[in-house]
Amino acid sequence: MNKKTTLDGKLSIGSDSLPHKSFQQRLADRRRGSSTLVEQEEKREDLGFGTKINDSSSRLVNKDGSFNVVRAHQGFWNQVNLYHTLITMPWPKFLSLVFTFYISSNTLFATFYGLLGYDHLVGLSNVTPDTTLGRFMGAFFFSSQTLTTVGYGHISPMGYWTSGLAAIESMFGLLLFAMATGLMYGRFSRPVASIRYSATSIFAPYLDINGWMFRIINQRTNQLIDVQVEVSLSRLEKKADGMLYRRYYPLKLERSKVNFFPANWTLVHPITDESPLYGCTAEQLAESDAEFLILLRGIEDTFNQAVHSRYSYRFDEVRWGAKFRPMYTGTDKGSRASLIDLDQLDETDPAELN
Amino acid sequence: MNKKTTLDGKLSIGSDSLPHKSFQQRLADRRRGSSTLVEQEEKREDLGFGTKINDSSSRLVNKDGSFNVVRAHQGFWNQVNLYHTLITMPWPKFLSLVFTFYISSNTLFATFYGLLGYDHLVGLSNVTPDTTLGRFMGAFFFSSQTLTTVGYGHISPMGYWTSGLAAIESMFGLLLFAMATGLMYGRFSRPVASIRYSATSIFAPYLDINGWMFRIINQRTNQLIDVQVEVSLSRLEKKADGMLYRRYYPLKLERSKVNFFPANWTLVHPITDESPLYGCTAEQLAESDAEFLILLRGIEDTFNQAVHSRYSYRFDEVRWGAKFRPMYTGTDKGSRASLIDLDQLDETDPAELN
Amino acid sequence: MNKKTTLDGKLSIGSDSLPHKSFQQRLADRRRGSSTLVEQEEKREDLGFGTKINDSSSRLVNKDGSFNVVRAHQGFWNQVNLYHTLITMPWPKFLSLVFTFYISSNTLFATFYGLLGYDHLVGLSNVTPDTTLGRFMGAFFFSSQTLTTVGYGHISPMGYWTSGLAAIESMFGLLLFAMATGLMYGRFSRPVASIRYSATSIFAPYLDINGWMFRIINQRTNQLIDVQVEVSLSRLEKKADGMLYRRYYPLKLERSKVNFFPANWTLVHPITDESPLYGCTAEQLAESDAEFLILLRGIEDTFNQAVHSRYSYRFDEVRWGAKFRPMYTGTDKGSRASLIDLDQLDETDPAELN
Amino acid sequence: MNKKTTLDGKLSIGSDSLPHKSFQQRLADRRRGSSTLVEQEEKREDLGFGTKINDSSSRLVNKDGSFNVVRAHQGFWNQVNLYHTLITMPWPKFLSLVFTFYISSNTLFATFYGLLGYDHLVGLSNVTPDTTLGRFMGAFFFSSQTLTTVGYGHISPMGYWTSGLAAIESMFGLLLFAMATGLMYGRFSRPVASIRYSATSIFAPYLDINGWMFRIINQRTNQLIDVQVEVSLSRLEKKADGMLYRRYYPLKLERSKVNFFPANWTLVHPITDESPLYGCTAEQLAESDAEFLILLRGIEDTFNQAVHSRYSYRFDEVRWGAKFRPMYTGTDKGSRASLIDLDQLDETDPAELN
Repeated sequence: MNKKTTLDGKLSIGSDSLPHKSFQQRLADRRRGSSTLVEQEEKREDLGFGTKINDSSSRLVNKDGSFNVVRAHQGFWNQVNLYHTLITMPWPKFLSLVFTFYISSNTLFATFYGLLGYDHLVGLSNVTPDTTLGRFMGAFFFSSQTLTTVGYGHISPMGYWTSGLAAIESMFGLLLFAMATGLMYGRFSRPVASIRYSATSIFAPYLDINGWMFRIINQRTNQLIDVQVEVSLSRLEKKADGMLYRRYYPLKLERSKVNFFPANWTLVHPITDESPLYGCTAEQLAESDAEFLILLRGIEDTFNQAVHSRYSYRFDEVRWGAKFRPMYTGTDKGSRASLIDLDQLDETDPAELN
Repeated sequence: MNKKTTLDGKLSIGSDSLPHKSFQQRLADRRRGSSTLVEQEEKREDLGFGTKINDSSSRLVNKDGSFNVVRAHQGFWNQVNLYHTLITMPWPKFLSLVFTFYISSNTLFATFYGLLGYDHLVGLSNVTPDTTLGRFMGAFFFSSQTLTTVGYGHISPMGYWTSGLAAIESMFGLLLFAMATGLMYGRFSRPVASIRYSATSIFAPYLDINGWMFRIINQRTNQLIDVQVEVSLSRLEKKADGMLYRRYYPLKLERSKVNFFPANWTLVHPITDESPLYGCTAEQLAESDAEFLILLRGIEDTFNQAVHSRYSYRFDEVRWGAKFRPMYTGTDKGSRASLIDLDQLDETDPAELN
Repeated sequence: MNKKTTLDGKLSIGSDSLPHKSFQQRLADRRRGSSTLVEQEEKREDLGFGTKINDSSSRLVNKDGSFNVVRAHQGFWNQVNLYHTLITMPWPKFLSLVFTFYISSNTLFATFYGLLGYDHLVGLSNVTPDTTLGRFMGAFFFSSQTLTTVGYGHISPMGYWTSGLAAIESMFGLLLFAMATGLMYGRFSRPVASIRYSATSIFAPYLDINGWMFRIINQRTNQLIDVQVEVSLSRLEKKADGMLYRRYYPLKLERSKVNFFPANWTLVHPITDESPLYGCTAEQLAESDAEFLILLRGIEDTFNQAVHSRYSYRFDEVRWGAKFRPMYTGTDKGSRASLIDLDQLDETDPAELN
Repeated sequence: MNKKTTLDGKLSIGSDSLPHKSFQQRLADRRRGSSTLVEQEEKREDLGFGTKINDSSSRLVNKDGSFNVVRAHQGFWNQVNLYHTLITMPWPKFLSLVFTFYISSNTLFATFYGLLGYDHLVGLSNVTPDTTLGRFMGAFFFSSQTLTTVGYGHISPMGYWTSGLAAIESMFGLLLFAMATGLMYGRFSRPVASIRYSATSIFAPYLDINGWMFRIINQRTNQLIDVQVEVSLSRLEKKADGMLYRRYYPLKLERSKVNFFPANWTLVHPITDESPLYGCTAEQLAESDAEFLILLRGIEDTFNQAVHSRYSYRFDEVRWGAKFRPMYTGTDKGSRASLIDLDQLDETDPAELN
């Protein structure tokens, strides 16, 4: 009961933010120019998703940290955003794309050389048989030797047009290659924080009360420093007008920043009576379509670049009455270093809540 | 009426900032060393344009975010600022420039080879006809093969001078290419926030008062986080000395920072009685040559780089009594993701002001 | 004596943070939802190592600034983290790696060419003797000429398969080279603060009390600006439950930030009675396995990049009753510039403590 | 007179910071562990130069912003810091260095080829005369064709050793080139704020008191935003012990930050009675070896990089009783843009001080 009213309490607060004022009142307000509503509005948390996104079956942030939003009528070029795509696509895809591009460019140029006449490619017949396919393949190989500027010269262009085309192709090759280099470096040096989040967040006993917790590790060998984490609770609330609105509450963390992040880190939101989760139940989390939004920021060690990572836990990714199994497993015999077992990340043990 | 006086009020405040003190007062001030004027001056907002720019027909910030300022006697090299130009020019222009440069370099070197004697280029006659043009074109092709280091070798340099020139050209080619690569990568990795601003800003009803609003979207697919916006009102005011001075007022926003920027964002300046826009009319905006200056900052997601965007609305780019049409159009059937229609950005509907 | 009690004092404070409350109290707390423990916990310093790392023989931060932590079950790819490794490895190792890679790639491709038949490499016999080794070496050289795109052409591929393989190898070569370029630039432009720390930290007389001090210099010629330093004391403390826990205390510095860092800088923690080191002895430092953790941040001048440096002094790297020998040795005759002798960095002279 | 005492006032404050306490007092202090000296010390400004640098004839910051400090016994490699040098050296020097390196590498390799026997370079005699010089030059050209991977092939290596050397050289060439590319890009993308400071700073009438002023412009076309400036006064002061110590005072600016920096900016330190310059004379500036240290920070527009600039005015670079001539010269007829004349930067007109 008590709990229910608590939630109602919140909801009524929510509904307060759009009361129905008498005309006189509004007139008075306008004369004063001041507005209590404005002050309330300014207090309201908003992460940038807005209040309208109230479909209770869709999540806000996907597992990979991207936003669960589709944009209609986005301009084609803005949609493809070539560089962004080429930088973020996985290596195998990237390399096969490069290869495909290489093959097709050569095919294209080979065709052009054919149109200008194969006989302008001196030495072709020494390389490939004097058939249609043979000549084409010869032109193809010549093209590849030009594009990559390897230029053996056992096939060589003759006459204005063929020589000209070769001159253009070699320059084109250099530009392509310049781009490839840029992309390679871009892919390499792109700052990414590969944080692994515990499979589920938990409601666990914490000191003499309870806390909502999740655990993270840095998967990479390069260190992160100055890591800070922000957590927000997003949920639907019914306003006086009966409509569902999405509201956001920052969740205060016991510790939201660490200088070093050498091993694992358990983040704890203590459920005090100021917490929006105070006295909340699993059912309420579900019915209010609750989602915990996480934003992590840090500095990557190798290049001293700022990195960040997004994640979210939905109401059904929360375990009640559990505690994380420790990952620190003593000291490594050889190096006398502290030993952390990353496999323990997701492990929890049941624990009675306070 | 009331409104007029309000504006006068402002202007008189403006004029207050340079009162005429008696000699005694100033003497006293100097003895005290303290100065009320200094305190006032420190309070005055200044974005960096200064107060002198008071020609009412010129705008401060252009649509593309550049400043509407011309600098006389700027040193030539500072003016061209080669790298900056090559990085920021559009792709077609950049590529055609590269091409032109390639052609002209080859023409130049071909001429040099000619001066050293075409007969030092062995094999020339097999490639191009033995005419003046033919020989020149042959040298041109040889040059291109050297510059791009494709070096087929069916034309090859002979003798000290021609070989030496070829050696220099090939090195020169490598350097050029190194530059090209640098430029390519520079153009790629340059952090830009391609924010699209609503065509007009609006005066709209907001809660129980009114607000000045504009709306933005992120045109790109790569996300922006930690987006914050600063808005200033710039307008001319008549001081006691009758001169027009440009003054700047920060406009307090209902919400000036969001963690995430997945979709659209409507920025609202509530017109409370503290607002410099309180009780302001379209006529007054026009006569005071008002301009709304916007500075947006954020972090681009792919490379975690700081980006920013400038924009400005002039008095004639403001619509009175309108509200923006919602861009959130429910949930995408397939992906269950929230659906945003970017085409709605500029759409407004008439709305009665409070 | 007095000192001993002081340390006990600290320890008991430590133990305070987990008192044994009566069931009634905890019930009350829970009803209140408030928790004094939570407040205490929030106050507790934690750099990110956690309290569990309590093996008194292992250090937290290694001399090179890396963390003394071993991670079990780390995914293979995360462990190698190729780019990170290639960027951070010393130059000789990097270059020899490149060389090895070059040799082995050529060996591999030479084998392939052999499988496709050496007779498809025209001109081989003019380059190397017509023996098994000779032919293989010839193919090896041809491969190197293809990989580097030098392509003399005195050896040239014939037929579909060999030409095709050559086409692939030349593209492969370009990609490799693109990577090499990226790595080169990455290694070059990587921001590193090569700070040298004095061999030992000292307890020295400071004004009318004592201070714990260490001294640093910037080893490089490129300047650092906005340098700030954070120092924490980490030590083991016995809690009421008799267990050892590692606790962290920030050490307040007389001056923790400088705009410029042109020469040397002595950092001083004044041992006032608020200091956790107040009245502390060498024995106590040792028995509590004390370690001074240092984090330095700054801006590197050439590229205006943020850089940082970690270091730590353990209890046995502290000298009692000493003072640093000045490094400023007057003015350089020629340039009239201030003269700093870097060799003095580690030099100390005995000094009686207050 | 009054002024003189003022300065004395300051000096005595300076001397206050090291009073002579009775043994009792110091004992008491130590017992208390608290220290008034510590508090005073913490208040003292220090930019990082320290107090010892008290040779009155040497300046702290050079005109180019570098620090006027010489470091003895700096390790060789730290001193050269190759990358830093190659990035910061002027273009002509850089390019001639590249050229020299190119020539000498080829000379070196040519010698090696000679040692392995010129007869292993097939086709040499067709390129250069069959003399000692001729053969060497031929080898030189072959080397250049290998290093740049142009590889015409009219000269080609024969036999194991020569072919092997060529294989190594071509790889070596690629690495060199990769470095060159890295350097090129580094030089291009290096963030520099080319701020021009007015030749002299001035003491000018400011509102109803006086102010110390200097003026800056951005020489480049790419914009700076969020520009902030810190100014400190550094001067020698005599302490009670008769020694000269260098002390630093921050100078409060009327406006120390602007969002935009489209044109020129005059920075003003109002000389109120809180100012360390209050009632100061030219003689006093000189005798106390005063130097105004300036640190400017901003964000460069094209790449959104942080940039900074250092500068300093010594006592003899200050003009008394002058005011800057305005640089804003109305509106450009064509573009209707505000017109700024950069040539006016250093221009001042005499002005009577308040």
